[in-house]
Amino acid sequence: MTQELHRRPGTPSIVITVSDSCARGARQDVSGPAVAGALETAGFETIGLVTVPDETGTIEEAIRQAAARARLVVTTGGTGIAARDVTPEATRAVCDRLLEGVAELMRAEGRKETPLAALGRGVCGTLGTAVVLNVPGSPRGAVTALLAALPVLPHALELLAGRTEHSRTDEATAALHELEGHADKGKVERA
Amino acid sequence: MTQELHRRPGTPSIVITVSDSCARGARQDVSGPAVAGALETAGFETIGLVTVPDETGTIEEAIRQAAARARLVVTTGGTGIAARDVTPEATRAVCDRLLEGVAELMRAEGRKETPLAALGRGVCGTLGTAVVLNVPGSPRGAVTALLAALPVLPHALELLAGRTEHSRTDEATAALHELEGHADKGKVERA
Amino acid sequence: MTQELHRRPGTPSIVITVSDSCARGARQDVSGPAVAGALETAGFETIGLVTVPDETGTIEEAIRQAAARARLVVTTGGTGIAARDVTPEATRAVCDRLLEGVAELMRAEGRKETPLAALGRGVCGTLGTAVVLNVPGSPRGAVTALLAALPVLPHALELLAGRTEHSRTDEATAALHELEGHADKGKVERA
Repeated sequence: MTQELHRRPGTPSIVITVSDSCARGARQDVSGPAVAGALETAGFETIGLVTVPDETGTIEEAIRQAAARARLVVTTGGTGIAARDVTPEATRAVCDRLLEGVAELMRAEGRKETPLAALGRGVCGTLGTAVVLNVPGSPRGAVTALLAALPVLPHALELLAGRTEHSRTDEATAALHELEGHADKGKVERA
Repeated sequence: MTQELHRRPGTPSIVITVSDSCARGARQDVSGPAVAGALETAGFETIGLVTVPDETGTIEEAIRQAAARARLVVTTGGTGIAARDVTPEATRAVCDRLLEGVAELMRAEGRKETPLAALGRGVCGTLGTAVVLNVPGSPRGAVTALLAALPVLPHALELLAGRTEHSRTDEATAALHELEGHADKGKVERA
Repeated sequence: MTQELHRRPGTPSIVITVSDSCARGARQDVSGPAVAGALETAGFETIGLVTVPDETGTIEEAIRQAAARARLVVTTGGTGIAARDVTPEATRAVCDRLLEGVAELMRAEGRKETPLAALGRGVCGTLGTAVVLNVPGSPRGAVTALLAALPVLPHALELLAGRTEHSRTDEATAALHELEGHADKGKVERA
Protein backbone atom coordinates (compact mmCIF):
# COMPACT_ATOMS: atom_id res chain seq x y z
CA MET A 1 0.00 0.00 0.00
CA THR A 2 1.25 3.48 -0.91
CA GLN A 3 0.24 4.64 2.55
CA GLU A 4 2.58 2.12 4.14
CA LEU A 5 5.47 2.85 1.81
CA HIS A 6 5.42 6.54 2.55
CA ARG A 7 4.72 6.30 6.25
CA ARG A 8 7.43 7.64 8.50
CA PRO A 9 7.04 5.92 11.85
CA GLY A 10 7.53 8.52 14.50
CA THR A 11 6.46 11.53 12.45
CA PRO A 12 6.03 14.18 15.14
CA SER A 13 2.48 15.34 15.76
CA ILE A 14 0.83 17.69 18.23
CA VAL A 15 -2.79 17.52 19.37
CA ILE A 16 -4.57 20.74 20.36
CA THR A 17 -7.79 20.40 22.33
CA VAL A 18 -9.92 23.48 21.81
CA SER A 19 -12.40 23.78 24.65
CA ASP A 20 -13.29 26.49 27.12
CA SER A 21 -14.28 24.02 29.81
CA CYS A 22 -11.23 21.78 29.38
CA ALA A 23 -8.97 24.84 29.41
CA ARG A 24 -10.37 26.04 32.72
CA GLY A 25 -10.27 22.56 34.21
CA ALA A 26 -14.03 22.12 34.48
CA ARG A 27 -14.04 19.11 32.21
CA GLN A 28 -11.62 16.31 31.55
CA ASP A 29 -10.22 16.19 28.04
CA VAL A 30 -11.20 12.87 26.50
CA SER A 31 -10.89 13.73 22.81
CA GLY A 32 -7.27 14.87 22.86
CA PRO A 33 -5.98 11.56 24.25
CA ALA A 34 -8.30 9.65 21.90
CA VAL A 35 -6.79 11.48 18.92
CA ALA A 36 -3.26 10.95 20.24
CA GLY A 37 -3.95 7.24 20.62
CA ALA A 38 -5.20 6.94 17.06
CA LEU A 39 -2.14 8.83 15.83
CA GLU A 40 0.24 6.49 17.67
CA THR A 41 -1.53 3.49 16.16
CA ALA A 42 -1.05 5.04 12.73
CA GLY A 43 2.68 5.47 13.26
CA PHE A 44 2.84 9.08 14.35
CA GLU A 45 4.56 10.21 17.54
CA THR A 46 2.55 12.64 19.63
CA ILE A 47 5.13 15.06 21.02
CA GLY A 48 2.61 17.40 22.60
CA LEU A 49 -0.94 17.64 23.92
CA VAL A 50 -2.13 21.21 24.32
CA THR A 51 -5.42 22.59 25.63
CA VAL A 52 -6.64 26.06 24.71
CA PRO A 53 -9.91 27.94 25.17
CA ASP A 54 -12.20 28.79 22.23
CA GLU A 55 -10.44 32.09 21.48
CA THR A 56 -9.38 32.78 17.91
CA GLY A 57 -6.07 34.44 18.76
CA THR A 58 -5.09 31.78 21.24
CA ILE A 59 -5.92 28.99 18.81
CA GLU A 60 -3.97 30.68 16.02
CA GLU A 61 -0.90 31.02 18.21
CA ALA A 62 -1.15 27.40 19.38
CA ILE A 63 -1.35 26.18 15.77
CA ARG A 64 1.61 28.33 14.71
CA GLN A 65 3.76 27.07 17.57
CA ALA A 66 2.75 23.47 16.98
CA ALA A 67 3.45 23.68 13.24
CA ALA A 68 6.97 24.91 13.99
CA ARG A 69 7.69 21.79 16.05
CA ALA A 70 5.60 19.04 14.46
CA ARG A 71 4.70 17.88 10.97
CA LEU A 72 1.07 17.12 11.82
CA VAL A 73 -1.16 19.33 13.96
CA VAL A 74 -4.60 18.00 14.86
CA THR A 75 -7.09 20.25 16.62
CA THR A 76 -10.17 18.74 18.27
CA GLY A 77 -13.20 20.85 19.12
CA GLY A 78 -14.62 24.20 18.10
CA THR A 79 -15.70 23.12 14.61
CA GLY A 80 -19.45 23.36 15.16
CA ILE A 81 -21.85 26.24 14.73
CA ALA A 82 -22.18 27.48 18.30
CA ALA A 83 -21.15 31.08 18.83
CA ARG A 84 -17.82 30.17 20.40
CA ASP A 85 -16.85 27.58 17.78
CA VAL A 86 -14.02 29.39 16.00
CA THR A 87 -11.40 26.73 15.30
CA PRO A 88 -11.93 26.75 11.49
CA GLU A 89 -11.65 30.55 11.39
CA ALA A 90 -8.37 30.42 13.35
CA THR A 91 -7.05 27.65 11.10
CA ARG A 92 -7.91 29.49 7.89
CA ALA A 93 -6.20 32.58 9.26
CA VAL A 94 -2.84 30.88 9.80
CA CYS A 95 -2.66 28.29 7.01
CA ASP A 96 -0.85 28.87 3.74
CA ARG A 97 -3.34 26.80 1.79
CA LEU A 98 -6.55 24.89 2.36
CA LEU A 99 -7.13 21.32 1.20
CA GLU A 100 -10.88 21.36 0.62
CA GLY A 101 -10.86 17.74 -0.51
CA VAL A 102 -9.67 16.54 2.88
CA ALA A 103 -12.46 18.42 4.65
CA GLU A 104 -14.94 16.90 2.20
CA LEU A 105 -13.50 13.46 2.89
CA MET A 106 -13.82 13.88 6.67
CA ARG A 107 -17.43 14.99 6.36
CA ALA A 108 -18.31 12.26 3.85
CA GLU A 109 -16.94 9.58 6.18
CA GLY A 110 -18.54 11.25 9.20
CA ARG A 111 -21.94 11.25 7.53
CA LYS A 112 -21.78 7.47 7.41
CA GLU A 113 -22.01 7.56 11.22
CA THR A 114 -24.32 10.52 11.73
CA PRO A 115 -25.93 13.01 9.35
CA LEU A 116 -24.90 15.71 11.83
CA ALA A 117 -21.36 15.43 10.46
CA ALA A 118 -22.60 17.69 7.66
CA LEU A 119 -22.63 20.54 10.19
CA GLY A 120 -18.88 20.17 10.79
CA ARG A 121 -16.95 23.20 9.61
CA GLY A 122 -13.50 21.71 10.16
CA VAL A 123 -10.86 22.44 7.56
CA CYS A 124 -7.50 21.01 6.60
CA GLY A 125 -4.62 23.19 5.55
CA THR A 126 -0.88 23.44 5.19
CA LEU A 127 1.39 25.71 7.22
CA GLY A 128 5.02 25.55 6.16
CA THR A 129 5.84 21.87 6.01
CA ALA A 130 3.05 20.91 8.43
CA VAL A 131 -0.50 19.74 7.82
CA VAL A 132 -3.17 21.18 10.12
CA LEU A 133 -6.35 19.18 10.56
CA ASN A 134 -9.53 20.23 12.41
CA VAL A 135 -11.53 17.31 13.78
CA PRO A 136 -14.75 17.47 15.85
CA GLY A 137 -14.83 17.70 19.60
CA SER A 138 -16.48 14.42 20.43
CA PRO A 139 -14.03 11.53 20.89
CA ARG A 140 -15.74 9.34 18.36
CA GLY A 141 -16.31 12.12 15.83
CA ALA A 142 -12.69 13.14 16.24
CA VAL A 143 -11.32 9.67 15.59
CA THR A 144 -13.68 9.07 12.66
CA ALA A 145 -12.51 12.27 10.99
CA LEU A 146 -8.86 11.51 11.68
CA LEU A 147 -9.15 8.00 10.26
CA ALA A 148 -10.79 9.44 7.15
CA ALA A 149 -7.89 11.81 6.56
CA LEU A 150 -5.07 9.43 7.51
CA PRO A 151 -4.67 7.68 4.13
CA VAL A 152 -3.61 10.92 2.47
CA LEU A 153 -1.51 12.46 5.25
CA PRO A 154 1.82 10.61 4.73
CA HIS A 155 1.84 11.53 1.06
CA ALA A 156 0.92 15.14 1.82
CA LEU A 157 3.71 15.36 4.40
CA GLU A 158 6.27 14.02 1.94
CA LEU A 159 5.37 16.62 -0.64
CA LEU A 160 5.52 19.43 1.90
CA ALA A 161 8.95 18.20 3.02
CA GLY A 162 10.43 19.52 -0.18
CA ARG A 163 9.59 17.33 -3.11
CA THR A 164 9.62 19.11 -6.42
CA GLU A 165 6.61 20.32 -8.25
CA HIS A 166 6.23 17.08 -10.13
CA SER A 167 6.63 14.53 -7.41
CA ARG A 168 2.93 14.50 -6.69
CA THR A 169 2.10 13.75 -10.27
CA ASP A 170 4.76 11.10 -10.52
CA GLU A 171 3.90 9.39 -7.30
CA ALA A 172 0.19 9.50 -7.98
CA THR A 173 0.90 7.92 -11.34
CA ALA A 174 3.13 5.35 -9.71
CA ALA A 175 0.44 4.61 -7.13
CA LEU A 176 -2.02 4.07 -9.93
CA HIS A 177 0.39 1.78 -11.73
CA GLU A 178 0.68 -0.22 -8.55
CA LEU A 179 -3.08 -0.38 -8.31
CA GLU A 180 -3.11 -1.69 -11.84
CA GLY A 181 -0.53 -4.33 -10.98
CA HIS A 182 2.30 -2.84 -12.95
CA ALA A 183 5.83 -2.57 -11.62
CA ASP A 184 6.87 1.01 -11.03
CA LYS A 185 9.50 1.08 -13.73
CA GLY A 186 8.60 4.30 -15.44
CA LYS A 187 8.89 6.48 -12.41
CA VAL A 188 10.39 9.81 -13.29
CA GLU A 189 13.40 10.92 -11.31
CA ARG A 190 12.80 13.75 -8.93
CA ALA A 191 14.80 16.88 -9.62
CA MET B 1 -34.49 9.30 15.94
CA THR B 2 -32.42 12.31 16.98
CA GLN B 3 -34.12 14.32 14.32
CA GLU B 4 -37.51 13.62 15.86
CA LEU B 5 -36.39 14.32 19.40
CA HIS B 6 -35.05 17.74 18.53
CA ARG B 7 -37.80 18.77 16.15
CA ARG B 8 -39.82 21.76 17.23
CA PRO B 9 -43.22 21.52 15.54
CA GLY B 10 -44.14 24.92 14.32
CA THR B 11 -40.61 26.33 13.99
CA PRO B 12 -41.22 29.48 11.97
CA SER B 13 -39.82 29.46 8.45
CA ILE B 14 -39.97 31.84 5.50
CA VAL B 15 -39.63 30.87 1.85
CA ILE B 16 -38.14 33.37 -0.60
CA THR B 17 -38.67 32.72 -4.29
CA VAL B 18 -35.91 34.41 -6.29
CA SER B 19 -37.10 34.88 -9.86
CA ASP B 20 -37.34 37.86 -12.18
CA SER B 21 -40.33 36.45 -14.03
CA CYS B 22 -42.22 35.46 -10.89
CA ALA B 23 -41.52 38.85 -9.35
CA ARG B 24 -42.98 40.68 -12.33
CA GLY B 25 -45.96 38.33 -12.49
CA ALA B 26 -45.03 36.74 -15.82
CA ARG B 27 -44.78 33.30 -14.32
CA GLN B 28 -46.58 31.52 -11.53
CA ASP B 29 -44.39 30.51 -8.60
CA VAL B 30 -44.52 26.76 -8.25
CA SER B 31 -41.30 26.15 -6.30
CA GLY B 32 -42.08 28.42 -3.36
CA PRO B 33 -45.32 26.60 -2.49
CA ALA B 34 -43.60 23.22 -3.09
CA VAL B 35 -40.90 24.15 -0.57
CA ALA B 36 -43.49 25.45 1.90
CA GLY B 37 -45.40 22.20 1.60
CA ALA B 38 -42.31 20.11 2.30
CA LEU B 39 -41.50 22.32 5.29
CA GLU B 40 -44.98 21.87 6.75
CA THR B 41 -44.70 18.12 6.37
CA ALA B 42 -41.40 18.28 8.24
CA GLY B 43 -42.95 20.15 11.14
CA PHE B 44 -42.04 23.72 10.27
CA GLU B 45 -44.59 26.50 10.04
CA THR B 46 -44.26 28.70 6.97
CA ILE B 47 -45.06 32.18 8.19
CA GLY B 48 -44.18 33.92 4.95
CA LEU B 49 -43.80 33.40 1.23
CA VAL B 50 -41.88 36.18 -0.48
CA THR B 51 -41.00 36.70 -4.15
CA VAL B 52 -38.08 38.88 -5.21
CA PRO B 53 -36.28 39.50 -8.53
CA ASP B 54 -32.73 38.29 -9.17
CA GLU B 55 -31.13 41.42 -7.74
CA THR B 56 -28.35 40.99 -5.18
CA GLY B 57 -29.36 43.90 -2.96
CA THR B 58 -33.03 42.94 -2.95
CA ILE B 59 -32.25 39.32 -2.11
CA GLU B 60 -29.90 40.36 0.70
CA GLU B 61 -32.56 42.59 2.23
CA ALA B 62 -35.21 39.86 1.93
CA ILE B 63 -32.95 37.36 3.68
CA ARG B 64 -32.11 39.81 6.47
CA GLN B 65 -35.77 40.62 7.09
CA ALA B 66 -36.77 36.96 7.00
CA ALA B 67 -33.99 35.92 9.39
CA ALA B 68 -35.22 38.51 11.88
CA ARG B 69 -38.69 36.92 11.94
CA ALA B 70 -38.07 33.21 11.27
CA ARG B 71 -35.61 30.55 12.35
CA LEU B 72 -35.32 28.95 8.91
CA VAL B 73 -35.08 30.88 5.65
CA VAL B 74 -35.20 28.91 2.43
CA THR B 75 -34.54 30.63 -0.88
CA THR B 76 -35.49 28.91 -4.14
CA GLY B 77 -33.96 29.98 -7.45
CA GLY B 78 -30.95 31.92 -8.65
CA THR B 79 -28.38 29.27 -7.73
CA GLY B 80 -27.31 28.39 -11.26
CA ILE B 81 -24.63 29.83 -13.52
CA ALA B 82 -26.66 32.14 -15.71
CA ALA B 83 -25.64 35.77 -15.55
CA ARG B 84 -28.54 36.78 -13.32
CA ASP B 85 -28.16 33.89 -10.86
CA VAL B 86 -26.89 35.74 -7.79
CA THR B 87 -28.65 34.13 -4.83
CA PRO B 88 -25.46 32.47 -3.46
CA GLU B 89 -23.56 35.76 -3.64
CA ALA B 90 -26.35 37.55 -1.75
CA THR B 91 -26.48 34.80 0.85
CA ARG B 92 -22.72 34.80 1.41
CA ALA B 93 -22.85 38.57 1.81
CA VAL B 94 -25.36 38.51 4.67
CA CYS B 95 -24.56 35.29 6.53
CA ASP B 96 -22.36 35.13 9.61
CA ARG B 97 -20.98 31.73 8.67
CA LEU B 98 -21.24 29.21 5.89
CA LEU B 99 -21.92 25.52 6.44
CA GLU B 100 -20.09 24.00 3.47
CA GLY B 101 -21.05 20.49 4.53
CA VAL B 102 -24.75 21.20 4.07
CA ALA B 103 -24.17 22.52 0.55
CA GLU B 104 -22.11 19.40 -0.20
CA LEU B 105 -24.94 17.26 1.17
CA MET B 106 -27.56 18.97 -1.01
CA ARG B 107 -25.43 18.52 -4.13
CA ALA B 108 -24.54 14.92 -3.30
CA GLU B 109 -28.22 14.03 -2.91
CA GLY B 110 -29.15 16.06 -5.97
CA ARG B 111 -26.62 14.21 -8.12
CA LYS B 112 -28.50 11.01 -7.40
CA GLU B 113 -31.35 12.48 -9.48
CA THR B 114 -29.40 14.39 -12.10
CA PRO B 115 -25.69 15.03 -12.67
CA LEU B 116 -26.63 18.65 -13.33
CA ALA B 117 -26.99 19.12 -9.58
CA ALA B 118 -23.20 19.52 -9.58
CA LEU B 119 -23.72 22.91 -11.22
CA GLY B 120 -25.73 24.15 -8.24
CA ARG B 121 -23.99 26.95 -6.39
CA GLY B 122 -26.42 27.09 -3.49
CA VAL B 123 -24.97 27.63 -0.03
CA CYS B 124 -26.16 27.22 3.53
CA GLY B 125 -25.29 29.67 6.25
CA THR B 126 -26.24 31.07 9.60
CA LEU B 127 -27.51 34.59 10.27
CA GLY B 128 -28.06 35.32 13.93
CA THR B 129 -30.13 32.42 15.21
CA ALA B 130 -31.47 31.55 11.76
CA VAL B 131 -30.31 29.07 9.16
CA VAL B 132 -30.41 30.26 5.54
CA LEU B 133 -30.62 27.63 2.85
CA ASN B 134 -30.38 28.12 -0.94
CA VAL B 135 -32.20 25.46 -2.94
CA PRO B 136 -32.56 25.28 -6.73
CA GLY B 137 -35.35 26.93 -8.67
CA SER B 138 -37.06 23.86 -10.08
CA PRO B 139 -39.77 22.45 -7.80
CA ARG B 140 -38.28 18.99 -7.75
CA GLY B 141 -34.68 20.16 -7.36
CA ALA B 142 -35.80 22.47 -4.57
CA VAL B 143 -37.57 19.74 -2.63
CA THR B 144 -34.72 17.26 -3.15
CA ALA B 145 -32.21 19.74 -1.75
CA LEU B 146 -34.47 20.65 1.16
CA LEU B 147 -35.03 17.00 2.07
CA ALA B 148 -31.27 16.42 1.97
CA ALA B 149 -30.66 19.24 4.45
CA LEU B 150 -33.65 18.58 6.74
CA PRO B 151 -32.02 15.91 8.95
CA VAL B 152 -29.46 18.41 10.25
CA LEU B 153 -31.62 21.51 10.50
CA PRO B 154 -33.35 20.90 13.87
CA HIS B 155 -30.01 20.28 15.55
CA ALA B 156 -28.46 23.32 13.91
CA LEU B 157 -31.37 25.49 15.02
CA GLU B 158 -31.07 24.28 18.61
CA LEU B 159 -27.40 25.18 18.74
CA LEU B 160 -28.03 28.61 17.28
CA ALA B 161 -30.79 29.21 19.84
CA GLY B 162 -28.18 29.59 22.54
CA ARG B 163 -26.66 26.31 23.52
CA THR B 164 -23.20 26.56 24.99
CA GLU B 165 -20.03 25.86 23.13
CA HIS B 166 -20.05 22.21 24.06
CA SER B 167 -23.62 21.25 23.44
CA ARG B 168 -22.86 20.18 19.91
CA THR B 169 -20.17 17.84 21.06
CA ASP B 170 -22.28 16.47 23.84
CA GLU B 171 -25.35 15.97 21.73
CA ALA B 172 -23.41 14.47 18.87
CA THR B 173 -21.86 12.07 21.35
CA ALA B 174 -25.27 11.36 22.77
CA ALA B 175 -26.65 10.75 19.31
CA LEU B 176 -23.83 8.34 18.63
CA HIS B 177 -24.47 6.56 21.91
CA GLU B 178 -28.08 6.18 20.86
CA LEU B 179 -26.98 4.79 17.52
CA GLU B 180 -24.86 2.30 19.39
CA GLY B 181 -27.81 1.34 21.55
CA HIS B 182 -26.43 2.77 24.77
CA ALA B 183 -28.50 4.76 27.19
CA ASP B 184 -27.42 8.38 27.34
CA LYS B 185 -26.11 8.19 30.89
CA GLY B 186 -22.76 9.81 30.44
CA LYS B 187 -24.06 13.04 29.05
CA VAL B 188 -21.99 15.93 30.26
CA GLU B 189 -23.83 18.82 31.87
CA ARG B 190 -23.90 21.95 29.86
CA ALA B 191 -22.14 24.92 31.39
CA MET C 1 -29.57 11.49 -22.66
CA THR C 2 -29.69 15.19 -21.84
CA GLN C 3 -25.94 15.29 -22.29
CA GLU C 4 -26.25 14.08 -25.85
CA LEU C 5 -29.08 16.43 -26.70
CA HIS C 6 -27.16 19.49 -25.60
CA ARG C 7 -23.76 18.47 -26.95
CA ARG C 8 -22.36 20.67 -29.65
CA PRO C 9 -19.93 18.59 -31.69
CA GLY C 10 -16.91 20.68 -32.37
CA THR C 11 -17.20 22.98 -29.36
CA PRO C 12 -13.78 24.65 -29.33
CA SER C 13 -11.56 23.76 -26.39
CA ILE C 14 -7.98 24.58 -25.40
CA VAL C 15 -5.75 22.46 -23.19
CA ILE C 16 -3.12 24.16 -21.04
CA THR C 17 -0.37 21.97 -19.61
CA VAL C 18 1.05 23.60 -16.48
CA SER C 19 4.52 22.20 -15.82
CA ASP C 20 7.92 23.74 -15.28
CA SER C 21 9.75 20.77 -16.78
CA CYS C 22 7.47 20.46 -19.81
CA ALA C 23 7.73 24.20 -20.40
CA ARG C 24 11.53 24.07 -20.46
CA GLY C 25 11.57 20.97 -22.64
CA ALA C 26 13.00 18.65 -19.99
CA ARG C 27 9.99 16.39 -20.05
CA GLN C 28 7.54 15.33 -22.71
CA ASP C 29 3.97 16.40 -22.14
CA VAL C 30 1.81 13.28 -21.92
CA SER C 31 -1.17 14.67 -20.02
CA GLY C 32 -2.05 17.47 -22.42
CA PRO C 33 -2.47 15.12 -25.40
CA ALA C 34 -4.35 12.63 -23.17
CA VAL C 35 -6.82 15.35 -22.20
CA ALA C 36 -7.14 16.51 -25.80
CA GLY C 37 -7.86 12.95 -26.89
CA ALA C 38 -10.60 12.56 -24.28
CA LEU C 39 -12.12 15.86 -25.35
CA GLU C 40 -12.21 14.84 -29.00
CA THR C 41 -13.92 11.60 -28.06
CA ALA C 42 -16.51 13.62 -26.16
CA GLY C 43 -17.25 15.79 -29.16
CA PHE C 44 -15.09 18.81 -28.43
CA GLU C 45 -12.57 20.21 -30.89
CA THR C 46 -9.19 20.98 -29.40
CA ILE C 47 -8.08 24.16 -31.15
CA GLY C 48 -4.97 24.66 -29.05
CA LEU C 49 -2.46 22.89 -26.81
CA VAL C 50 -0.43 25.26 -24.70
CA THR C 51 2.38 24.59 -22.22
CA VAL C 52 3.25 27.07 -19.48
CA PRO C 53 5.53 26.95 -16.41
CA ASP C 54 4.11 26.91 -12.85
CA GLU C 55 4.00 30.71 -12.59
CA THR C 56 0.77 32.32 -11.41
CA GLY C 57 0.88 35.30 -13.76
CA THR C 58 1.72 33.19 -16.79
CA ILE C 59 -1.06 30.72 -16.04
CA GLU C 60 -3.57 33.53 -15.53
CA GLU C 61 -2.68 35.08 -18.87
CA ALA C 62 -2.85 31.71 -20.64
CA ILE C 63 -6.33 31.05 -19.20
CA ARG C 64 -7.56 34.52 -20.17
CA GLN C 65 -6.31 34.16 -23.74
CA ALA C 66 -7.73 30.66 -24.06
CA ALA C 67 -11.14 31.68 -22.69
CA ALA C 68 -11.32 34.41 -25.32
CA ARG C 69 -10.91 31.85 -28.13
CA ALA C 70 -12.49 28.66 -26.77
CA ARG C 71 -15.59 27.69 -24.82
CA LEU C 72 -13.83 25.09 -22.68
CA VAL C 73 -10.38 25.56 -21.13
CA VAL C 74 -8.82 22.56 -19.38
CA THR C 75 -5.60 22.98 -17.44
CA THR C 76 -3.59 19.91 -16.42
CA GLY C 77 -1.01 20.07 -13.65
CA GLY C 78 -0.19 22.33 -10.73
CA THR C 79 -3.18 21.34 -8.60
CA GLY C 80 -1.25 19.58 -5.84
CA ILE C 81 0.25 20.88 -2.63
CA ALA C 82 3.90 21.29 -3.63
CA ALA C 83 5.25 24.80 -3.30
CA ARG C 84 5.05 25.50 -7.01
CA ASP C 85 1.53 24.14 -7.51
CA VAL C 86 -0.39 27.34 -8.16
CA THR C 87 -2.89 26.51 -10.90
CA PRO C 88 -5.96 26.75 -8.62
CA GLU C 89 -4.82 30.15 -7.33
CA ALA C 90 -4.37 31.43 -10.88
CA THR C 91 -7.76 30.05 -11.90
CA ARG C 92 -9.57 31.60 -8.95
CA ALA C 93 -7.92 34.91 -9.75
CA VAL C 94 -9.28 35.09 -13.29
CA CYS C 95 -12.65 33.36 -13.07
CA ASP C 96 -15.94 35.20 -12.67
CA ARG C 97 -17.44 32.44 -10.57
CA LEU C 98 -16.47 29.11 -9.10
CA LEU C 99 -18.51 25.94 -9.45
CA GLU C 100 -17.63 24.14 -6.23
CA GLY C 101 -19.89 21.23 -7.09
CA VAL C 102 -17.83 20.35 -10.16
CA ALA C 103 -14.62 20.30 -8.11
CA GLU C 104 -16.38 18.08 -5.55
CA LEU C 105 -17.51 15.78 -8.36
CA MET C 106 -13.98 15.48 -9.79
CA ARG C 107 -12.54 14.64 -6.37
CA ALA C 108 -15.35 12.20 -5.53
CA GLU C 109 -14.75 10.29 -8.77
CA GLY C 110 -10.99 10.50 -8.36
CA ARG C 111 -11.19 8.99 -4.88
CA LYS C 112 -12.68 5.87 -6.43
CA GLU C 113 -9.27 5.32 -8.05
CA THR C 114 -6.96 6.62 -5.34
CA PRO C 115 -7.55 8.26 -1.96
CA LEU C 116 -4.85 10.75 -2.93
CA ALA C 117 -7.41 12.47 -5.14
CA ALA C 118 -8.57 14.15 -1.92
CA LEU C 119 -5.39 16.23 -2.02
CA GLY C 120 -6.37 17.73 -5.37
CA ARG C 121 -7.03 21.44 -5.15
CA GLY C 122 -8.33 21.83 -8.68
CA VAL C 123 -11.28 24.14 -9.20
CA CYS C 124 -13.84 24.76 -11.92
CA GLY C 125 -15.03 28.21 -12.81
CA THR C 126 -16.59 30.37 -15.46
CA LEU C 127 -14.87 33.17 -17.34
CA GLY C 128 -17.15 35.02 -19.72
CA THR C 129 -18.87 32.33 -21.75
CA ALA C 130 -16.12 29.76 -21.10
CA VAL C 131 -15.78 27.06 -18.49
CA VAL C 132 -12.30 26.63 -16.97
CA LEU C 133 -11.48 23.27 -15.47
CA ASN C 134 -8.36 22.29 -13.47
CA VAL C 135 -7.47 18.60 -13.71
CA PRO C 136 -4.46 16.85 -12.15
CA GLY C 137 -1.10 16.50 -13.84
CA SER C 138 -0.94 12.75 -14.20
CA PRO C 139 -2.46 11.48 -17.47
CA ARG C 140 -4.80 9.09 -15.75
CA GLY C 141 -5.79 11.50 -12.99
CA ALA C 142 -6.41 14.16 -15.63
CA VAL C 143 -8.67 11.97 -17.73
CA THR C 144 -10.55 10.65 -14.69
CA ALA C 145 -11.30 14.20 -13.53
CA LEU C 146 -12.30 15.30 -17.02
CA LEU C 147 -14.65 12.37 -17.48
CA ALA C 148 -16.24 13.16 -14.11
CA ALA C 149 -16.97 16.73 -15.17
CA LEU C 150 -18.01 16.01 -18.77
CA PRO C 151 -21.68 15.19 -18.10
CA VAL C 152 -22.37 18.71 -16.86
CA LEU C 153 -20.19 20.68 -19.27
CA PRO C 154 -22.49 20.87 -22.32
CA HIS C 155 -25.35 22.16 -20.19
CA ALA C 156 -23.08 24.67 -18.45
CA LEU C 157 -21.78 25.92 -21.80
CA GLU C 158 -25.30 26.39 -23.13
CA LEU C 159 -26.29 28.49 -20.15
CA LEU C 160 -23.17 30.63 -20.44
CA ALA C 161 -23.87 31.17 -24.14
CA GLY C 162 -26.71 33.48 -23.27
CA ARG C 163 -29.71 31.68 -21.91
CA THR C 164 -31.93 33.72 -19.69
CA GLU C 165 -32.01 33.51 -15.96
CA HIS C 166 -34.59 30.78 -15.98
CA SER C 167 -33.26 28.44 -18.60
CA ARG C 168 -31.35 26.42 -16.05
CA THR C 169 -34.45 25.87 -14.02
CA ASP C 170 -36.52 25.04 -17.04
CA GLU C 171 -34.02 22.69 -18.57
CA ALA C 172 -33.29 20.98 -15.30
CA THR C 173 -37.00 20.51 -14.85
CA ALA C 174 -37.27 19.24 -18.41
CA ALA C 175 -34.37 16.87 -17.81
CA LEU C 176 -36.11 15.56 -14.74
CA HIS C 177 -39.35 15.13 -16.67
CA GLU C 178 -37.43 13.11 -19.22
CA LEU C 179 -35.96 11.00 -16.46
CA GLU C 180 -39.46 10.41 -15.25
CA GLY C 181 -40.59 9.47 -18.73
CA HIS C 182 -42.89 12.45 -19.23
CA ALA C 183 -43.03 14.44 -22.41
CA ASP C 184 -41.72 17.95 -21.94
CA LYS C 185 -45.07 19.64 -22.45
CA GLY C 186 -45.03 22.03 -19.57
CA LYS C 187 -41.81 23.74 -20.48
CA VAL C 188 -42.05 27.43 -19.77
CA GLU C 189 -41.09 29.80 -22.54
CA ARG C 190 -37.86 31.60 -22.05
CA ALA C 191 -38.12 35.37 -21.80
